[in-house]
Amino acid sequence: MPLTDPDRLFPVEPTLRGLARALYDSVANLPIISPHGHCDPRWFAENDRFPNPAELFVIPDHYVFRMLVSQGVPMTDLGVPRVDGGATETDPRKIWRCFADHQHLFRATPSAMWLDHSLEHVFGVDVALSPDTANDIYDHIDGKLAAPEFRPRALFESFKIDALATTEGALDDLHWHRQIRESGWKGRVVTTYRPDAVVDPEFEGFADNVAELGRITGEDTSTWAGYLAAHRARRAYFKEFGATASDHGHPTARTEDLPPDAAEALFFKALLGTCTADEADAFRGHMLTEMARMSLEDGLTLQIHPGSRRNHNAAVFARHGRDRGFDIPGRTDYVAALKPLLGAVGMEPGLTIIVFTLDETAYGRELAPLAGAYPALKLGPPWWFFDSYEGIKRFRETTTETCGFYNTAGFNDDTRAFCSIPARHDVSRRSDSAYLANLVATGRLREADAFEVAHDLAYGLAKTAYQL
Amino acid sequence: MPLTDPDRLFPVEPTLRGLARALYDSVANLPIISPHGHCDPRWFAENDRFPNPAELFVIPDHYVFRMLVSQGVPMTDLGVPRVDGGATETDPRKIWRCFADHQHLFRATPSAMWLDHSLEHVFGVDVALSPDTANDIYDHIDGKLAAPEFRPRALFESFKIDALATTEGALDDLHWHRQIRESGWKGRVVTTYRPDAVVDPEFEGFADNVAELGRITGEDTSTWAGYLAAHRARRAYFKEFGATASDHGHPTARTEDLPPDAAEALFFKALLGTCTADEADAFRGHMLTEMARMSLEDGLTLQIHPGSRRNHNAAVFARHGRDRGFDIPGRTDYVAALKPLLGAVGMEPGLTIIVFTLDETAYGRELAPLAGAYPALKLGPPWWFFDSYEGIKRFRETTTETCGFYNTAGFNDDTRAFCSIPARHDVSRRSDSAYLANLVATGRLREADAFEVAHDLAYGLAKTAYQL
Amino acid sequence: MPLTDPDRLFPVEPTLRGLARALYDSVANLPIISPHGHCDPRWFAENDRFPNPAELFVIPDHYVFRMLVSQGVPMTDLGVPRVDGGATETDPRKIWRCFADHQHLFRATPSAMWLDHSLEHVFGVDVALSPDTANDIYDHIDGKLAAPEFRPRALFESFKIDALATTEGALDDLHWHRQIRESGWKGRVVTTYRPDAVVDPEFEGFADNVAELGRITGEDTSTWAGYLAAHRARRAYFKEFGATASDHGHPTARTEDLPPDAAEALFFKALLGTCTADEADAFRGHMLTEMARMSLEDGLTLQIHPGSRRNHNAAVFARHGRDRGFDIPGRTDYVAALKPLLGAVGMEPGLTIIVFTLDETAYGRELAPLAGAYPALKLGPPWWFFDSYEGIKRFRETTTETCGFYNTAGFNDDTRAFCSIPARHDVSRRSDSAYLANLVATGRLREADAFEVAHDLAYGLAKTAYQL
Repeated sequence: MPLTDPDRLFPVEPTLRGLARALYDSVANLPIISPHGHCDPRWFAENDRFPNPAELFVIPDHYVFRMLVSQGVPMTDLGVPRVDGGATETDPRKIWRCFADHQHLFRATPSAMWLDHSLEHVFGVDVALSPDTANDIYDHIDGKLAAPEFRPRALFESFKIDALATTEGALDDLHWHRQIRESGWKGRVVTTYRPDAVVDPEFEGFADNVAELGRITGEDTSTWAGYLAAHRARRAYFKEFGATASDHGHPTARTEDLPPDAAEALFFKALLGTCTADEADAFRGHMLTEMARMSLEDGLTLQIHPGSRRNHNAAVFARHGRDRGFDIPGRTDYVAALKPLLGAVGMEPGLTIIVFTLDETAYGRELAPLAGAYPALKLGPPWWFFDSYEGIKRFRETTTETCGFYNTAGFNDDTRAFCSIPARHDVSRRSDSAYLANLVATGRLREADAFEVAHDLAYGLAKTAYQL
Repeated sequence: MPLTDPDRLFPVEPTLRGLARALYDSVANLPIISPHGHCDPRWFAENDRFPNPAELFVIPDHYVFRMLVSQGVPMTDLGVPRVDGGATETDPRKIWRCFADHQHLFRATPSAMWLDHSLEHVFGVDVALSPDTANDIYDHIDGKLAAPEFRPRALFESFKIDALATTEGALDDLHWHRQIRESGWKGRVVTTYRPDAVVDPEFEGFADNVAELGRITGEDTSTWAGYLAAHRARRAYFKEFGATASDHGHPTARTEDLPPDAAEALFFKALLGTCTADEADAFRGHMLTEMARMSLEDGLTLQIHPGSRRNHNAAVFARHGRDRGFDIPGRTDYVAALKPLLGAVGMEPGLTIIVFTLDETAYGRELAPLAGAYPALKLGPPWWFFDSYEGIKRFRETTTETCGFYNTAGFNDDTRAFCSIPARHDVSRRSDSAYLANLVATGRLREADAFEVAHDLAYGLAKTAYQL
Repeated sequence: MPLTDPDRLFPVEPTLRGLARALYDSVANLPIISPHGHCDPRWFAENDRFPNPAELFVIPDHYVFRMLVSQGVPMTDLGVPRVDGGATETDPRKIWRCFADHQHLFRATPSAMWLDHSLEHVFGVDVALSPDTANDIYDHIDGKLAAPEFRPRALFESFKIDALATTEGALDDLHWHRQIRESGWKGRVVTTYRPDAVVDPEFEGFADNVAELGRITGEDTSTWAGYLAAHRARRAYFKEFGATASDHGHPTARTEDLPPDAAEALFFKALLGTCTADEADAFRGHMLTEMARMSLEDGLTLQIHPGSRRNHNAAVFARHGRDRGFDIPGRTDYVAALKPLLGAVGMEPGLTIIVFTLDETAYGRELAPLAGAYPALKLGPPWWFFDSYEGIKRFRETTTETCGFYNTAGFNDDTRAFCSIPARHDVSRRSDSAYLANLVATGRLREADAFEVAHDLAYGLAKTAYQL
């Protein structure tokens, strides 16, 4: 009996299941376009073996360890590093065992489905992880990781990844990407321009970051014109390493289109560290419009990831730093917030702005109506807590009737858990097949069209939206 | 093979499908009550032939052309008129062909279902619109439009419309309605009192509009008492042409119940054009309560359509004017906003206030609890982006458990696309039948009751709520 | 033919239905844990017969009478008492008949399902309530109520209630609970500490209530330290009568963690009645954190029930007082609101804070992400308008993928309608079984795990979260 049900996520009614299976079969083996994510380019540059199961599945994945933490397991038992360098568990087998002991917490979560898929389809494990099987599975995976076909580049190829985008800060010298390119390896690993540290006045060390941006570009970033020129130069540099997109993670979706002198004045306040919270938000918002204008010149797709309230718990942040599972979605307005940006560039048919959300109430009410009107705007796939069966279902049900399929941008896995990439795309392809099957069987979509749409959702839309 | 699936929108599981079909069959041929919409009364007054397929299906329907615009098709390619009278496509066959070329954009949207239904059931077309079929279908429809049985009055009768309400501004002299009445034709086309232009201080030409209201009613609308008297007179005039309702489209659901002197003071500011945005909103809000008080006297049903942020894109508005698909829903509060109105008249059993929403999050949380308590309040059907299968499903699922069926007001098509009226009512009847079938099969509703409810939802509730 | 469908609420597709039935059968007869509700402890203290069907099913149940009121039935026709002692219907048979005449209003509502279940399973009625059957059913129930096996304690036992929590104000002397304890009866009826009247500066008679709190505890509640000590003493007193939890019903979810001097200053303003609305809200919010700190000492589970806008209609409140069906949910923020509380005590693994919501949009966006991170936080079950099939379905679908099952707290019936307790738990068990069946059949949950989860949802989680 397989670890994963071959018909998982398909509707149960036999007609629907047959249709869903047929749709899925037509896209299951398409190559993967992974246009947004957080894999480490170093893996593909050095191509060293992955160290052990705990470092592959537990320690870097805040969606895994947060669930254990929520039930009282200390982060340090799971090997999460401490900011002060204090003691944290270092025995990967103990960490793995703790993970195994708490498997019931993951019942019916996407994490469980991704784990089972990775165990079975990447590592050939055929029993569920549990306290009883923890050691054997650890040894099994560890043994596999030693083999050449489990090195990062080999896995990349066996996953049939056409293109994988990583995300680097504006100040990154992209040396891992350079090393990949110089290695002669044919895998397409591209970077993404993520300038938060030089765009957000509230980012730690903003003024220093901007100064550094000037240093590495040779522009005078103490002036507004020089600062913008430095962005242009840096975007061009990122494009040399394959970038086709920029990405922006702001707490709100606010955009501004300020007159140049007002923007310049805010920039100086930001450098001096005297922005109020509202001014910092306005500056970030204005920079989205500047980035969109640069996109009109250099063709980068613009991604906006708003609405996460980062580091909700001060004690966890002080002890363990960023990205520890305490980033909580908040209510986000788009209609007023995006108006300045869309007023400036929204009618440009040559531009692609992809908006994500963590506030699902905006899908039907705001985002689908906006994407169904503005040529420049496309909807990103369900993000974070919602890149799951139910999340994808709600996304389709609340957006398709208003903006159709062709104002959406395909699937993103957005992960740093490399081995889960096939699993995540598989969930997306299955969930969309289930949705499409239901449309066909209820007379809302012709069957031949459904096969075309399935292909577009699995492959074509992401390729087009990200120019990959 | 028919263009539309005879079992469309019914659940797939055979027991459910059988039940849904039986429920639908019991209401499919009921006459249509269309108590709220935007058909042009001129059609029925003059009874001229509809000019061509493009003017019937594309140019006036912003839900159609916005989807093409969202993918980069210029509005002028679709014949949308320009404010400056500049060039726009005038060849209806070219516009139709452009529409046909982009049919894939409408996959799984209600627009596609309405089009297929109209093509098949109104015009007898049996193939899908596509680049290959565009010319033949154009010719076919154009030929039909020339025949007497496709004149507006003949279609009205063949659609089995019991009553159709149009919407006219308070200053309209209703001459088309007069012409209909004087023609001796028996079709029941009634008007609706829509006073936005004389109630909203931010409406273009508000003070002039109010002066004109005075002129046509013989009341002194430079005084508060005269202004109210003019509304009363105008409502009475509209009632002569069959009006049973007024309608109010405000950006928010705000209501006020101000003391007369405060209301009067705001009115004077409004006439002088010195209202702040908040004061303008307060005045609109107070006028809803005044309208409700007049409804207590004259019996008109009061409709509130809040929450649309109109003309989101300034360039589109400047070039093409209002109603061009750039009206975007926004978050709307009802609990606090409706409190003044409901405090004033909400417990009146003889009054009917119908509230619509574009913010679906309010259905379960606010609107159903309010409608399930206040005798005067009824919920309007899903509006705009949500008068679709999924929209109707979410409406029923989030309201029925709290306010039942009898605090809702039946279906509205709210359209200016006359030939889509049967299609829209058909979608509503099918969607409700699907919902009811599921209730019966899961033991939540007795089968005999479901047939009664189906009839009420398709016909009885609208007839009662609008006194038609 | 039974009044209730034995397969009600189960999916219709045969595979799913079989699975759901099997899951349900495994939990249907588990004892009931009722950890939060509003039954009157006097019933179990005195063990007198319930007076008549109207006082059992109509007069005390605002979910029943609000639906009739929403259709124009005066509250006084339903025997709802008036604040001024004025006339209200006193003939229970007339009230019952009015209820029967309006049964169609309840179609597809949970009230209808609870009524049918109670009629059939508690009283052995086998026909639906209607105008035709009203008198016979009245006589039948009235006859049963006279029998010893329909006395409160006998019903408690026949309902297989393991533990039932009532809710008493902080000033209650708990004499009914004392009488229950002293009677020697073995039924476990425990109290819950509900201090709103001495915690909310806007509560009628707040300062007097605080003075009374001092009197009954012997603490000087004119000082901040004495006030806190009085709470501690009172919580200890409630624990003597079985309390394992406190409960707090605030209009917002706001929490504060103020420095002691700031808290003290607010307390003095509250006593003087000089708090602004914002200060009153801050004081209530700070008291939640104080209560949580006391919970760390004494182990009481902390329940937060935010978001109800009470007494929406002033006229109804003036005439009939509180709890008359005019409490309307409102939008509630949790991410910012709970941050002070969770910053203070959220990482404590030994503490249990259960948060409820009436704003379902917060489930996926805010509450599940918070509960899936903070060890102290658990999600309460769907509350009020949402403790229904669709409400439970949406709750599971929007929370499980993010926080799993084990950050939720089982079911609450939260009722004052004693005879509906088995019905409500039955709806919960069926709805969860339906949900779990779907997970199993779509490969998202292993079948053996589903049986474990079903047991946890029906029994184990509530027992643990409330330490019952």
